[in-house]
Amino acid sequence: MAAFEPKNPDYRAVAAALFNAQPAMRTLGITLARLAPGEVELAMGYSPDVTQQNGFVHAGVITAGLDNACGVAAFSLMPRDADILTVEFKTSLLAPARGERFTFKAEVVKPGRTLTFCEARAFAERDGVATLVATMTGTLMALVRRDAAAPPVENASPAMRGD
Amino acid sequence: MAAFEPKNPDYRAVAAALFNAQPAMRTLGITLARLAPGEVELAMGYSPDVTQQNGFVHAGVITAGLDNACGVAAFSLMPRDADILTVEFKTSLLAPARGERFTFKAEVVKPGRTLTFCEARAFAERDGVATLVATMTGTLMALVRRDAAAPPVENASPAMRGD
Amino acid sequence: MAAFEPKNPDYRAVAAALFNAQPAMRTLGITLARLAPGEVELAMGYSPDVTQQNGFVHAGVITAGLDNACGVAAFSLMPRDADILTVEFKTSLLAPARGERFTFKAEVVKPGRTLTFCEARAFAERDGVATLVATMTGTLMALVRRDAAAPPVENASPAMRGD
Amino acid sequence: MAAFEPKNPDYRAVAAALFNAQPAMRTLGITLARLAPGEVELAMGYSPDVTQQNGFVHAGVITAGLDNACGVAAFSLMPRDADILTVEFKTSLLAPARGERFTFKAEVVKPGRTLTFCEARAFAERDGVATLVATMTGTLMALVRRDAAAPPVENASPAMRGD
Repeated sequence: MAAFEPKNPDYRAVAAALFNAQPAMRTLGITLARLAPGEVELAMGYSPDVTQQNGFVHAGVITAGLDNACGVAAFSLMPRDADILTVEFKTSLLAPARGERFTFKAEVVKPGRTLTFCEARAFAERDGVATLVATMTGTLMALVRRDAAAPPVENASPAMRGD
Repeated sequence: MAAFEPKNPDYRAVAAALFNAQPAMRTLGITLARLAPGEVELAMGYSPDVTQQNGFVHAGVITAGLDNACGVAAFSLMPRDADILTVEFKTSLLAPARGERFTFKAEVVKPGRTLTFCEARAFAERDGVATLVATMTGTLMALVRRDAAAPPVENASPAMRGD
Repeated sequence: MAAFEPKNPDYRAVAAALFNAQPAMRTLGITLARLAPGEVELAMGYSPDVTQQNGFVHAGVITAGLDNACGVAAFSLMPRDADILTVEFKTSLLAPARGERFTFKAEVVKPGRTLTFCEARAFAERDGVATLVATMTGTLMALVRRDAAAPPVENASPAMRGD
Repeated sequence: MAAFEPKNPDYRAVAAALFNAQPAMRTLGITLARLAPGEVELAMGYSPDVTQQNGFVHAGVITAGLDNACGVAAFSLMPRDADILTVEFKTSLLAPARGERFTFKAEVVKPGRTLTFCEARAFAERDGVATLVATMTGTLMALVRRDAAAPPVENASPAMRGD
């Protein structure tokens, strides 16, 4: 992919803050491993708490990692004072998510003023070998805060969601 | 949707067992609320542990509920000794997942020997009003256990996943 | 689905004009069969010209019908002077598209100022029996024309596509 | 992507025959430009017959090209005497499909005995510049012919489609 020029010089701090502001990531044990303009890598250790019936990581948890990688990647290219919501994503589950460690790599395919298209891949590491276990394509939406001083939770109201 | 005839007379016990065997559901606080042949409803109370940056439930958690509802619905129509894996799903996020309680309703659209197509909807209940916040379409795959006596985790090996 | 209130009193003429302005629909033999606010039905007779290797209608042609039904349904709820583009869609192919006549039924699930979410279903009629052969979920985007007097083709430039 | 080893030594002739057996490709003016194991490129010249209201190529036509590229790519890795059907795909429309010539490039991400996962990209060439206008992720299914001597149209009956 082409290198992207961030609109916000503080993109790194802002994108990391977005990630850290999400309690669901802590609950699932997902951490921010790498961040560049339009590119993000998250990591997650294996835990039995996030598995399905066969001991593999649940597809919803894999999706949470992929979606969050897409969200932070898209957010890193947005202007200051934007908020972000996911519009939709599709996850393809290529192989069972079995391993000791998982990585979620996302990159922006097409940034836009309103919509940003991203792609992401999930890898499971097992005995030192990384296997592609899932892919995602997703659409993210920038929400420009009407009042930049107000807290995000007030601004990202349903009225901002394409209504 | 048309009513479906389960192939397995024990579909109820087997489908409930599938749900209960998934630690990720306990971690996310999702419970099985209703089960009929090809139809499932799951429920989840609000918890700050599963939220994103604005206090809404994370899209990955919503997806975990939707996917699991699809999986149990599809599984309820499969023959005895089948195992199940998700092939792919798409989630559309129509509105912020804000509420005190969430329900995930799935139904089988087309059952099949190998592939089953499902649809699901997530609702957020807030002040007694339920709002449609997300939809899913997904494809699930039946894996016939080569040795029905062996534990599922051994059978659902990568070699069974379309290889 | 709930009944929708069109913002444009001329929605019927405008939506029909959108359909008729698409040469691809004529090439594929697809016609507008029914139109209500947020709901559309298209029809297509069988032709060997749109088939794949087994004589079934090609999945891309089925998708063209489903996507267009979604587009016209979404457009029927948009304000005057909007243009529309499809953001993304997913098509699930439940059964071979074999029949003498095909219908594409779309409805708006969630209209919005910027984004509208739609669902659609394709049916194949054969010997008087209609079979569900495909489903679609899609996201459509309203483009407000900067200069309503200018021709649409000039306004729907790449610069309007989320850039 | 890794290079793939075709199971069928005649993969080239068989995959080309699959493409040529699809009348819809002729109707849309799509041709086979390149074929390697698990990789396919199709080409299409601009024609007003396949456009939507703004003179861009219709999203359904773009999807037909992407889907067919995925199908032939997946088919090139399948064993002799297999037939193929598309299970589902998602198309993301990144930019208006405006240009003189269009290419559809697909590659297999994960081949499998039953299911094959593919990705594809559509490019529009305009004044010598190629722009990425759409992406697809899709799932394809191999259908093993019960009677290899029978014509494909008889074998790819609904009873083979996961039923």
